[in-house]
Amino acid sequence: MSVRELFNPRSIALVGATDKSGWSISTLGNLRAHGFPGPVHLVNPRGGVVHGMPAHKSLTDIAEPVDLAYVMVPTTAVLGVLREGAKLGIGCYVILTAGFGESGEEGARLEAEIAGFAVEHGLTILGPNGNGYINAAAGVTPYGLPIPPPLLRGEVGVVLQSGALASSVLSFAQARNVGISLLTSMGNEAVVSVTDVIDYLVDDPATKVIALFLETIRNPAEFSRVARRALEAGKPIVALKIGRSTLASHTAQAHTGALVGDDDVIDAALRRLGVIRVRSLEDLIITSGLLASSGPLPGPRVGVVTPSGGASEIIADRAEDEGLELPAFAPETVERLKEIVPAFGTVQNPLDVTGYVLIDRTLLGRALDVVTADPNIDLVMLLSEPPKLAPPDPAPVLAQYTASAERIAASRVPVVVVSNVLTDVTAFGRQVQQETGFPYVAGGIEHGMHAIGAAVRWSRTRARVLSRPEPSPRAEGALRPPGAHGVWAEHRAAALLVSSGLPVVPSDLARSEEEAVAAAGRFGYPVVLKAAAEGLGHKSDVGGVRLGLSAEEEVRRAYREVVAAVPSLDGVLVQPQRGGGIELLVGVVRDPAWGLTLAVGLGGVWVEVLRDTALRVLPVDAGEVRTALAELRGAALLDGVRGGPAADLDAVADVVARVASFAESLGDGLESLEINPLLVTGSRVEALDALITWR
Amino acid sequence: MSVRELFNPRSIALVGATDKSGWSISTLGNLRAHGFPGPVHLVNPRGGVVHGMPAHKSLTDIAEPVDLAYVMVPTTAVLGVLREGAKLGIGCYVILTAGFGESGEEGARLEAEIAGFAVEHGLTILGPNGNGYINAAAGVTPYGLPIPPPLLRGEVGVVLQSGALASSVLSFAQARNVGISLLTSMGNEAVVSVTDVIDYLVDDPATKVIALFLETIRNPAEFSRVARRALEAGKPIVALKIGRSTLASHTAQAHTGALVGDDDVIDAALRRLGVIRVRSLEDLIITSGLLASSGPLPGPRVGVVTPSGGASEIIADRAEDEGLELPAFAPETVERLKEIVPAFGTVQNPLDVTGYVLIDRTLLGRALDVVTADPNIDLVMLLSEPPKLAPPDPAPVLAQYTASAERIAASRVPVVVVSNVLTDVTAFGRQVQQETGFPYVAGGIEHGMHAIGAAVRWSRTRARVLSRPEPSPRAEGALRPPGAHGVWAEHRAAALLVSSGLPVVPSDLARSEEEAVAAAGRFGYPVVLKAAAEGLGHKSDVGGVRLGLSAEEEVRRAYREVVAAVPSLDGVLVQPQRGGGIELLVGVVRDPAWGLTLAVGLGGVWVEVLRDTALRVLPVDAGEVRTALAELRGAALLDGVRGGPAADLDAVADVVARVASFAESLGDGLESLEINPLLVTGSRVEALDALITWR
Repeated sequence: MSVRELFNPRSIALVGATDKSGWSISTLGNLRAHGFPGPVHLVNPRGGVVHGMPAHKSLTDIAEPVDLAYVMVPTTAVLGVLREGAKLGIGCYVILTAGFGESGEEGARLEAEIAGFAVEHGLTILGPNGNGYINAAAGVTPYGLPIPPPLLRGEVGVVLQSGALASSVLSFAQARNVGISLLTSMGNEAVVSVTDVIDYLVDDPATKVIALFLETIRNPAEFSRVARRALEAGKPIVALKIGRSTLASHTAQAHTGALVGDDDVIDAALRRLGVIRVRSLEDLIITSGLLASSGPLPGPRVGVVTPSGGASEIIADRAEDEGLELPAFAPETVERLKEIVPAFGTVQNPLDVTGYVLIDRTLLGRALDVVTADPNIDLVMLLSEPPKLAPPDPAPVLAQYTASAERIAASRVPVVVVSNVLTDVTAFGRQVQQETGFPYVAGGIEHGMHAIGAAVRWSRTRARVLSRPEPSPRAEGALRPPGAHGVWAEHRAAALLVSSGLPVVPSDLARSEEEAVAAAGRFGYPVVLKAAAEGLGHKSDVGGVRLGLSAEEEVRRAYREVVAAVPSLDGVLVQPQRGGGIELLVGVVRDPAWGLTLAVGLGGVWVEVLRDTALRVLPVDAGEVRTALAELRGAALLDGVRGGPAADLDAVADVVARVASFAESLGDGLESLEINPLLVTGSRVEALDALITWR
Repeated sequence: MSVRELFNPRSIALVGATDKSGWSISTLGNLRAHGFPGPVHLVNPRGGVVHGMPAHKSLTDIAEPVDLAYVMVPTTAVLGVLREGAKLGIGCYVILTAGFGESGEEGARLEAEIAGFAVEHGLTILGPNGNGYINAAAGVTPYGLPIPPPLLRGEVGVVLQSGALASSVLSFAQARNVGISLLTSMGNEAVVSVTDVIDYLVDDPATKVIALFLETIRNPAEFSRVARRALEAGKPIVALKIGRSTLASHTAQAHTGALVGDDDVIDAALRRLGVIRVRSLEDLIITSGLLASSGPLPGPRVGVVTPSGGASEIIADRAEDEGLELPAFAPETVERLKEIVPAFGTVQNPLDVTGYVLIDRTLLGRALDVVTADPNIDLVMLLSEPPKLAPPDPAPVLAQYTASAERIAASRVPVVVVSNVLTDVTAFGRQVQQETGFPYVAGGIEHGMHAIGAAVRWSRTRARVLSRPEPSPRAEGALRPPGAHGVWAEHRAAALLVSSGLPVVPSDLARSEEEAVAAAGRFGYPVVLKAAAEGLGHKSDVGGVRLGLSAEEEVRRAYREVVAAVPSLDGVLVQPQRGGGIELLVGVVRDPAWGLTLAVGLGGVWVEVLRDTALRVLPVDAGEVRTALAELRGAALLDGVRGGPAADLDAVADVVARVASFAESLGDGLESLEINPLLVTGSRVEALDALITWR
């Protein structure tokens, strides 16, 4: 399989070409209109003239070499075309034809047949049930829907798990003057997958940013690998991943299961991989366009230069949403701005140079020069945009924008241009950008601020992720114990934790009142009694827990009550009662796609009512756990509440990371491991209860 | 003052007209280009020819009556123009001139002079420091900046506290094919205020929706009045109110003060008034455009009809964000759709009729007919949009869109059309909408779903708010007690609550150990002791609280400790100790703009760490308090946690509403009243502590 050859053929055959098919008309029209330099052959079993050209009756009839066959024949005829093509040495195919996996069992069988044939003969196939691709960088456009002209070449590679949205993406990118390098409509991914295309784009010199529309991430491990490669190459991935609303919950005995929705895990995984997740097609393109134009963006200190007080305040509001800072200007900046801005204006960040820009066309530019020199600023946001309509004499406008472009290019810090509202960049606006070098405009304050925030966060995340060694797959299962099935009661789970060196509250398994009393004596009062029974999940629900026992007689009574309440006991666990401290929940569950996933949160009502947990796909290190803890809404509780001691976050992170690593060591059989609570008292961190569920 | 005359003059004089001023050129150009039917006179002290017309040397020199003077003279000359105009009987003015209140003390003095003169002589003035207005409905456009043609007339009235944003709003509205009735750039509001214009728009038959850009709400009482009028008239107000990020906190001894930021109060107030608050200019116009086109929208059950699976899933995600439901189609709908949708498609809501729409142009329309008939659906969202480019022969396209428009018009339920992405409606698109009656298109799924959500919420809120009697201003201060200043210690605050019939835990003020012991005996052990001292806010911070005293000796010791810890005691309060239950915080603070504001939340860490409170500007009734309680993130705690009893929400709401009403009765001198905690045990609701701060 060669994705590079798929996207860079020197000759193309349209198999199933016919005047009756809109797809056939569009594909040929696209190849002609967008400059495919090589020969295009039409194949139709009846021969004759198609689209005004003589058609060959079969691939075999073409006397010249064919690099790519674009296949539009009926579903059942596809395999025959592949057979013929393989014999002729044609390596690459786009299959537009539908009726495969998406249409039911028989289709899935046909698709499997094709995929198998492809593997056997080393064929590279895009589709089936996909419209093909647009390699704008190379002018190769075997694509079955009309491409609205002009096709803008640029540095954003677009990969779509949707055919119908491609036209919207193209149309919106054009309206933003965002050029694309490659756009692929993936279809059923029988052979070439999204990750194959990402892999290609990471190596493609024409591509700087990768924009994805994802319905599903078929192979998380592979996706993680290519995402890491993209990060290393400095190519941001921006993804619109849908399905936020279909939160399937895992079924697990542990709390954690209910806390971890599929989409939450995807969210955590994408964040970990440094993939920018957006929620709209507008943000997908506007953010990709910005990153293609700016590269990594320093932040978060933004200087804002505008000709409007109202816009300045909208920007201030949105900056806060996006975690961007608008620091006060340095004194020398203020001094210099006061010489420029009219007396009735106010010199502050965000800066409104006032409507006097209509009189003095240099005002905004001179203010920009001053603000970009401010030492407290990482980047500057300039509110501006190219003109919409061409004046009778465009020369003065072009001169003005050339001057602006030169100022921006000469700036010490990056300057991001944002427009007030999201309206199309017109043909004249594109011309101005092209001829003057006036930079990319992030469309509208709303989406523009999102794009800046996302770009700054990506740049920071990138540094952080790359500073960590790439997680090496662990030797899972090293510690898988015998008898690992069902739900392990606390005493067995706790023993396993202890054997692995994790801090667990001491306990004794008593099998009689006498043993319980003796154990209580050893630990000192008060103590806790808990039912220990195989398969018993929520002990307290069945009356299996007795707290705060402060005398021998209370222990005896509690023992009898627990034995009476819970049938088929292994015994009764006796533990010293701990008081005070902060309770955490630490859970590791197996996500069907992404594997073991850590959920950490504050215990009790915090998880039960607020579902306040932070997720990480494993592996994690202690540093990552600290970041996760900081994300909790109740994070301030860890600093100590109502006079209680602050949690030693290093100690907590260390234990949680070791719990995660321990869970990984338990192997494929582990369904979930939950410590609830993990009690934190200053730097003492101790598991008070544990539950392990095996698959 | 007559706002109606201001916006509907029959003749206009441009005072200070000169060929050198862009404002002068634009204003005259606008009046000429957009069809002002009456005479326009130019006034320039030097007379001569201006803009190719003979200019008068003064207003007096104009021999005909003038209804409106548009004033562009230097700042210090403005008052003279008003004097002359008043003498001539000119009642209405737009003052473009800047240099008034916005520029410092001297300017503020000049502005006050103008405002005083206007009041004295009954003049109606828009500005100063404003660009004027565009009455598109009447074709009256005394407006100082270029208006990009075509000026679209429609039913959205726009009021802006920003000059610079007007052009962006006009440009974006045009790109959405949203017509305006009136647009005003308010300037300094020396005479005519935002609320005056809203008042006018409520009565203006050309206006259906009012869109606001607000930097500040100068007069909350007046704003509340006009918002209520708008609600009664069925005219939605959509507002972009900036300043979210500048959260000024009140300084108050009580917790509540810190919990109530200025913007939170504005948010609560706007919600209460049924004003739709948006965060972007895009949402401002798209939402206004939808409501102007749809009127009130039933909801929340939406049927979705699209030609794209990818788009369907984006819509599903966004529907969840917006609180919209996508219920399953009724069985008969599914049956009928199965006859229409190609076999490889899936019949479900959201519906993807598949890319087969490219072959069968009637497919989407036929599916729409079926879905609009579904009995489980309140409204239908149709993914479609007018074409961008005119084909050589537009007739078939026009016929197709006419057919769609007719289907939509004939639908049983409202149909909202949304496009995939936010790109401009082109000139041809506008033509199609105009000629075929194809309805308004909410631009892009992202903003379109927001608009639908907002419209549905507005329609529901409107019914709820109007079903309540208009809050009549209470006779505040009826109960203002003597000695109301400073911070009132618990015993005085509690006594006041008790005197008003509010449930407060019983207590005795003991002035000796003996009295404390006697009181404890009467209440029964365990008891609580608390320092009672004038001006003492947080008692526990100074060691003034002792809990869980279960014997006489403990009471004696606690008494001595409290007396030792807190100087200048009035005595020590003895109360029975309450256990269990759910703790609420109920606070009423005086917002400087909106007046008394209720904050209700769950006590303890919930308010301290999460700031989980719901706000309401007073007055409130018990029903509104129940709604507020339901907004809490921890609302589930009220249903009972860990086996505790559920709170009787009616009882809680009743007490909280009575506390609010009690606070109002205390008069202007009340700064804040806080009950923390209000203990709820089933249907028992009892204040355990109270604090009153007077201004």
